[in-house]
Amino acid sequence: MADSNCIFCAIAEGRIPATIVHQDADVVAFKDIAPQAPVHLVLVPREHFAGLNELTPDRARLVGRIALVAKELAEAQGCAANGWRLVSNCGPDAGQTVFHLHFHVLGGRPMAGKMV
Amino acid sequence: MADSNCIFCAIAEGRIPATIVHQDADVVAFKDIAPQAPVHLVLVPREHFAGLNELTPDRARLVGRIALVAKELAEAQGCAANGWRLVSNCGPDAGQTVFHLHFHVLGGRPMAGKMV
Repeated sequence: MADSNCIFCAIAEGRIPATIVHQDADVVAFKDIAPQAPVHLVLVPREHFAGLNELTPDRARLVGRIALVAKELAEAQGCAANGWRLVSNCGPDAGQTVFHLHFHVLGGRPMAGKMV
Repeated sequence: MADSNCIFCAIAEGRIPATIVHQDADVVAFKDIAPQAPVHLVLVPREHFAGLNELTPDRARLVGRIALVAKELAEAQGCAANGWRLVSNCGPDAGQTVFHLHFHVLGGRPMAGKMV
């Protein structure tokens, strides 16, 4: 399930250090190393696949799990009430740089109206 | 399940016109009326709830369904290979304006590196 060359697999397995804020059997969450907002977390499934283009009905369940963890972490980080953004970038036009599905949780300040 | 004052419920039920690109028992997708990219779709669950802060384990399943429909629509709209972005805004800091959970699919051109 893991890819030995993938940095997010390495973080999920504890082979590369990161500030982990959540982990369970399906999902691992950690602080983004180059934050774009006061709260900027990255949530990944433990299962390795490149991104949203590789979703299947089975894997779609993991996206639901990630969204639920995202909501819990937004609450825990204190940005749920004021507002937060959930983003997944897929492919070069979206600027995806790590090809292991991940979602960003961004919050802690007012955001631009533009999403792209 | 629907809120009679909600514009996205009205679109999902056909009471307000929109360019519908997908509908099934759980999810309705339509073109954004103020597109921020050549492809800009809005995906909503038929069930009315305000947003990600109101997710429950049951509702998380709907987010998985939405992500799978998003992937299929990105393919159908021709932006899957080049890249696309999936976004949900929750609350005032994120600029959420319609308080019915929705996800944006954005694609069709290179996007900014910034997500906020």
